[in-house]
Order: sequence, then structure tokens, then C-alpha cells
Amino acid sequence: TQQLFPSRTSRPKPFRVTNANRSMKKGIMADGLRDLLNKAMDAFHVSCVSALVLDEDGTGVDTEEFFQTLKENTVFMVLEKGQKWTSHQNKDSQV
Amino acid sequence: TQQLFPSRTSRPKPFRVTNANRSMKKGIMADGLRDLLNKAMDAFHVSCVSALVLDEDGTGVDTEEFFQTLKENTVFMVLEKGQKWTSHQNKDSQV
Repeated sequence: TQQLFPSRTSRPKPFRVTNANRSMKKGIMADGLRDLLNKAMDAFHVSCVSALVLDEDGTGVDTEEFFQTLKENTVFMVLEKGQKWTSHQNKDSQV
Repeated sequence: TQQLFPSRTSRPKPFRVTNANRSMKKGIMADGLRDLLNKAMDAFHVSCVSALVLDEDGTGVDTEEFFQTLKENTVFMVLEKGQKWTSHQNKDSQV
């Protein structure tokens, strides 16, 4: 018997998504970037997402390809229009 | 059976690219230096890249050979004409 290996969007993986000020964080299962985006919008009641970035360093995740390289439980930050990523502890750096 | 080993541009790897003032950073998949350059130009809407350098110390990455030695998720900075690499303001607050 032969088994097909799903090359792109495989089975859902767990991710964690926080809002811009890190006051809330939610666990979300997603099988792709678009899926995570939709579910994050639902979870945080955001109607217009400006970007989905990595919480650790603010890297914008715009492509499915890059998304698929991320590990389970990677922490994302969902940004609405006008919001910007800031680093964790000290927000001393100017913009 | 014989297997072909891809000598030059193997499968795409994830990288991270920031702009000159580090206000934006994006995750980009690329299988080579030229590929990364093209995608970085698209991602940042830059029409004329002056250089692609390492974010950590400003090392210019000009050759495919050197590029291929870099690890996944290496952070690059894309420089437009007239822009220069500068060191992080304070890089002590990382992970």
C-alpha cells in the first residue's frame, strides 16, 4: 500500500497567539498561515489584521512556505492596523 | 539506483530579513542568494538593493558560496542605495 505524503498544508499544529500588548494569549490549531490568520482574527475579535509576526523578534510571516518551517507552539503576535511589534522586557529602543 | 545530489541551490531554507532601520522584519524562504535578494526586494518594495548584509555585524554577503554556509533563520539586513548598516542600539536584551 502506498501512502501519500502531504507536501504543503499537512495536519493542524498547535500555535500560540498573543495580542499586541501581550495581555492575552491563546492556543490555536492551524494547518496553514491562512487558517491561523482566520482563527486569530476570530479569537481576538479583530476585523482587520495588519500582520502576523513572531513574538520573539517581530519577524513578519507573510508566506505559507516560511510558516511551514515553524515549530509547534511557536508564539505569534497578531497586529491590527496601527499596531507595532515591540520587544518583551524593555521598550527602550526608539522607532 | 543512483541518486542525484543537488550541488548548488538545494531546497529552500528560511531566513529573516530586516530593513535598514530595523522597523520591519520578514520571514523569507530562499534557495539561494539571488532568490533571497529578489524576494527581499519584493517584500520591502525596494527597487534597487545596494547590499545584503548580516544583521549581526554588517558582513556583506556577495557570493552564493558564502551564502550557502549560513544557517537557517540567519538575519539579514537589506540596504538600499545610500543606506548603511549600523549596530543594534543595545543587544543585551535578547533571549
